[in-house]
Amino acid sequence: MALLLALVILFIYLFRNTTPQQESSGLGRSTSAYITVAAFLLGALCSGIAGYVGMWVSVRANVRVSSAARRSAREALQIAVRAGGFSALVVVGMAVIGIAILYATFYVWLGVDSQGSMKVTDLPLLLVGYGFGASFVALFAQLGGGIYTKAADVGADLVGKVEQGIPEDDPRNPAVIADLVGDNVGDCAARGADLFESIAAEIISAMILGGTMARHCKIEDPSGFILFPLVIHSFDLVISSVGILSIRGKRDSSLKSSIEDPMAILQKGYSLTIVLSVLTFGLSTRWLLYTERAPSAWFNFALCGLVGIITAYAFVWITKYYTDYKHEPVRTLALASTTGHGTNIIAGVSLGLESTALPVLVISLSIVSAFWLGHTSGLVDEDGNPTGGLFGTAVATMGMLSTAAYILTMDMFGPIADNAGGIVEMSQQPESVREITDVLDAVGNTTKATTKGFAIGSAALASFLLFSAYMDEVAAFAQEPFKQVDIAIPEVFVGGLLGSMLIFLFSAWACAAVGRTAQEVVNEVRRQFIERPGIMDYKEKPDYGRCVAIVASASLREMIKPGALAIVSPIAVGFLFRILGYYTGHPLLGAKVVAAMLMFATVSGILMALFLNTAGGAWDNAKKYIETGALGGKGSECHKAAVTGDTVGDPFKDTAGPSLHVLIKMLATITLVMAPIFL
Amino acid sequence: MALLLALVILFIYLFRNTTPQQESSGLGRSTSAYITVAAFLLGALCSGIAGYVGMWVSVRANVRVSSAARRSAREALQIAVRAGGFSALVVVGMAVIGIAILYATFYVWLGVDSQGSMKVTDLPLLLVGYGFGASFVALFAQLGGGIYTKAADVGADLVGKVEQGIPEDDPRNPAVIADLVGDNVGDCAARGADLFESIAAEIISAMILGGTMARHCKIEDPSGFILFPLVIHSFDLVISSVGILSIRGKRDSSLKSSIEDPMAILQKGYSLTIVLSVLTFGLSTRWLLYTERAPSAWFNFALCGLVGIITAYAFVWITKYYTDYKHEPVRTLALASTTGHGTNIIAGVSLGLESTALPVLVISLSIVSAFWLGHTSGLVDEDGNPTGGLFGTAVATMGMLSTAAYILTMDMFGPIADNAGGIVEMSQQPESVREITDVLDAVGNTTKATTKGFAIGSAALASFLLFSAYMDEVAAFAQEPFKQVDIAIPEVFVGGLLGSMLIFLFSAWACAAVGRTAQEVVNEVRRQFIERPGIMDYKEKPDYGRCVAIVASASLREMIKPGALAIVSPIAVGFLFRILGYYTGHPLLGAKVVAAMLMFATVSGILMALFLNTAGGAWDNAKKYIETGALGGKGSECHKAAVTGDTVGDPFKDTAGPSLHVLIKMLATITLVMAPIFL
Repeated sequence: MALLLALVILFIYLFRNTTPQQESSGLGRSTSAYITVAAFLLGALCSGIAGYVGMWVSVRANVRVSSAARRSAREALQIAVRAGGFSALVVVGMAVIGIAILYATFYVWLGVDSQGSMKVTDLPLLLVGYGFGASFVALFAQLGGGIYTKAADVGADLVGKVEQGIPEDDPRNPAVIADLVGDNVGDCAARGADLFESIAAEIISAMILGGTMARHCKIEDPSGFILFPLVIHSFDLVISSVGILSIRGKRDSSLKSSIEDPMAILQKGYSLTIVLSVLTFGLSTRWLLYTERAPSAWFNFALCGLVGIITAYAFVWITKYYTDYKHEPVRTLALASTTGHGTNIIAGVSLGLESTALPVLVISLSIVSAFWLGHTSGLVDEDGNPTGGLFGTAVATMGMLSTAAYILTMDMFGPIADNAGGIVEMSQQPESVREITDVLDAVGNTTKATTKGFAIGSAALASFLLFSAYMDEVAAFAQEPFKQVDIAIPEVFVGGLLGSMLIFLFSAWACAAVGRTAQEVVNEVRRQFIERPGIMDYKEKPDYGRCVAIVASASLREMIKPGALAIVSPIAVGFLFRILGYYTGHPLLGAKVVAAMLMFATVSGILMALFLNTAGGAWDNAKKYIETGALGGKGSECHKAAVTGDTVGDPFKDTAGPSLHVLIKMLATITLVMAPIFL
Repeated sequence: MALLLALVILFIYLFRNTTPQQESSGLGRSTSAYITVAAFLLGALCSGIAGYVGMWVSVRANVRVSSAARRSAREALQIAVRAGGFSALVVVGMAVIGIAILYATFYVWLGVDSQGSMKVTDLPLLLVGYGFGASFVALFAQLGGGIYTKAADVGADLVGKVEQGIPEDDPRNPAVIADLVGDNVGDCAARGADLFESIAAEIISAMILGGTMARHCKIEDPSGFILFPLVIHSFDLVISSVGILSIRGKRDSSLKSSIEDPMAILQKGYSLTIVLSVLTFGLSTRWLLYTERAPSAWFNFALCGLVGIITAYAFVWITKYYTDYKHEPVRTLALASTTGHGTNIIAGVSLGLESTALPVLVISLSIVSAFWLGHTSGLVDEDGNPTGGLFGTAVATMGMLSTAAYILTMDMFGPIADNAGGIVEMSQQPESVREITDVLDAVGNTTKATTKGFAIGSAALASFLLFSAYMDEVAAFAQEPFKQVDIAIPEVFVGGLLGSMLIFLFSAWACAAVGRTAQEVVNEVRRQFIERPGIMDYKEKPDYGRCVAIVASASLREMIKPGALAIVSPIAVGFLFRILGYYTGHPLLGAKVVAAMLMFATVSGILMALFLNTAGGAWDNAKKYIETGALGGKGSECHKAAVTGDTVGDPFKDTAGPSLHVLIKMLATITLVMAPIFL
């Protein structure tokens, strides 16, 4: 599919118009076409590799974690965290190195900054194809992986846990292998591709903005502003490694005391990483963002970075509050399960909807304050207007992502622990071993929810940056200023409506795909239990392969519809309104409508993703809380209601939710790459 | 609360600035304060009366409907429809007469159109207070009523139907009286206030636009353009009466054949009303919108009306498709119930999310085409620019609402039939009588979903109109042009984020209120069943009063938080960003941020309301479909899963969903009334 789309892009770029700037810099039609396509393919490839690495590490690590869990919880935690850390470093490192190589190649190939060729400040725009390729593969990885894992999970739970009353990951369940494979496909492969894409999109958008601002402010050496994100993420690799290595196992500690609170251990490592990131961030701003034109600007940007770091910390805290069963919301949700399935679902939906409020307030505060800090940094353009505002927001985004590798580690750790639990269950280890992996699994649920909140926050900021790049791009092609998108024009309002609708429809199709596939799995599992009565007495082996085949083929089939919607609809809307604009004498109508669509989709997508992720995480942990023995414990009516909530939450938090922020960024990059056809 | 708010408005208006136009027209500070407060209080009062009338009629009609159901389905249908029709005509009539009286009073009192006083084209803006008062009371009626009815309903169902296995509305259920009272409180009183508000808001916004356009185009006699909406709704009363009266009972028809399809009968009446409305609409445009300046404009506007009527018809059809169990979606949902509670909920959520797509496409199409028709109508302002676009959209909205009384009749008919079913059950009539009321109840569910879709569609259009009135108002106060709201400014983007978040948070609180209260009811009902074991054998009477007391006090308490959120947040955001704008040298920042907030809230609100209403209606009817004997019928596991879906859908479709479109319009009117304090 990526190859096919590459051909389409090539075709469009070969027949589109070029801007006078491009012509003057010797960047002809065919050069820019080849550059974009090459970047797109490399991005797609790297995204695929990121996913593959995540899975490769996970399947090797989880058996070791389950083995370590027989000895000590702390050791199991350490192995899981280090395995996750390895994947995380590869993913972040690949984003940094990939972009650096592309940048260097283009720099040399195009003879940047030499006479008669392009300026270095325009170079980052050529990298957009890389981001688009990464998003494109990540979207399908997340969609397909999410459908795979959750259809298997829901199907296995509904028949196994609810109808037959056998434990989770019981080898008698015909869907158990599909479920365990799914954890790797959906949570490791998909999340790897997804976070690779997040970081790549964020680096590129910040580089574009840095370049644009340096050009406007006529800064003598703009490369510091452009390369800043790459340096930040290089430091990220170092400081996150320190944080990861700070989590050490103590073999001598007794079993019971050591499972006390893995979350606290992870948080300690996170706090260390955060402290280091504040230091390195401050140093980097002084080093790279110091300019004679505004001597104190670097300090304002350092504060922007601090805003971002605080935002990240607040996000982690808020998500933990809403999804950890130590806090009020999940306890209330668990309590709602005592009065039945219905009240559990109502409470979970309300919890998810409510949980959008604080993150939005935090994002709002950080956008406004970072913009203001950048605005007052003293950087002015040729007319004396302050211009640093948007770059301030970009620096805040980098601050937020300056501990990305550690955050990703916490994310990758979750599915490894989850799968280790499955191996413990299937190899019939004692209950105490299972308890250890269960605790790690519950922590993994919270950290996974955290990462998603994090990814959403950065997606919000990155889209806002890409949005301004899009407006610059349109202005360059149209050769007239394109500074505002006026939502009081009916067509633009309609674009907004369509953008928000896109989010709802996409979520609907993603959830429906899981529901449909899960129904197939349920029917298959039920059939096997009926046709092979020996399964329940361990006399007969279930046919695991059938369930794997069902989810594998269904996920490949079902991801096409939502995926196509995401790619086709912005292009179709832009093109349609371009034609409408042509007939009604509105030359920029297509570009404006797409801009509104993008903006409304971003806002709705942020809210919808926050809702879906938090509700799903909370349902999962409410069930886990009841399984610790609270409110009746396993097997009670209350537990059954909680399992229903958990199954509903599965497609929310692992299929639709995490796909949405990839979708948001893909919409931003797709409009940027396709901008010429809206004009 | 309305009195309190009236004092606040009075206070603000007495200390705010006035515009030069107001001063020159003799409309001083105190006059405009008294006018706004008086209009606000009258609107609030009328909204209250509308709710009361709905309930008054309903409690008198439902016993007659249940009595008629013993004789013939058709007669029962006829009585229910006529009772609903009576309320509908009172509600619509009151909106028309209330606005007409206010208009006439202000006209005479202020000496409009005489020398040195205000122009008639500015008069409609003084009516905004009326719309605000109506929205204000409707919001609380809908919230409180919705919480009341659904908490009782969910509580009664979860213990009665799921745990004890007794039928719906069984007199042994201690919550049954609360449930039946709730149908009147939530579905009749709340919906009456709600639809009164819808029509009032739509008439006022169209009058404002008509006046503005007439002024810009210097039309010789502007009163035709201003009074047009009142005339359309006066015709509405006549043609809807014809439609209602066309539904006649035939006593001689046999019982069985006559219950065939009440939906078809209602649709036939609707089709008749639609045909009549096309005729009267065409006549009214020729009569009132003919102007020498653009002789063919009236025809363009007639086409706009046709667009609106087609939109209304499409909305009814789409809602029917997604919520009627004759069609694919609800059947798929019912099928998903066979694999458990979890898949039922996933399928319902996906169905609801998906159902937003078609209505959005229809609204988009009708906005763009009506705008275009108005734009090309030939009406031009003093500079020769075409100006009729927005008024075209307004005329389309009127076209959509030109059969409002009939639509409202179909809505009011639902709860009457529902309650009649309760009376049949409690008075232990034969099963065949219950079957008749059940069929009517199922039809009522579909028509109720239809009305909500309808209310949302008109809210979308009305908000868009009020939005432009807001921009005019801000421009008048600021004495500088306020033509665009630029979403590329970070603060404005933040305003949009906050607006969308408001919708999510409001929905969360509304659903959570129902969930919490339902849990109280469940615990109370469980307690009664345990403490009074004689209830199940009809030996002891349950304590109905306790349940009524629980839901009554809870609904009054729980509606405060979401209600306050809706009122306080736009004012707080506008004021905050006004101060921020003052310090950053952005004079219109507060007004712009509020505009973005309003716009994003409108878009998100439309989508969220469509989602909640359709999902709720579909769940309810999937359950009803299974109760007809499909997929295992009553008492099967599949039915239990469907009941879970139904309980989840209850707060969606009857509390949060219908409150949202009132919220959208209240946001629009609140910002319009409070505009001066954002500047």
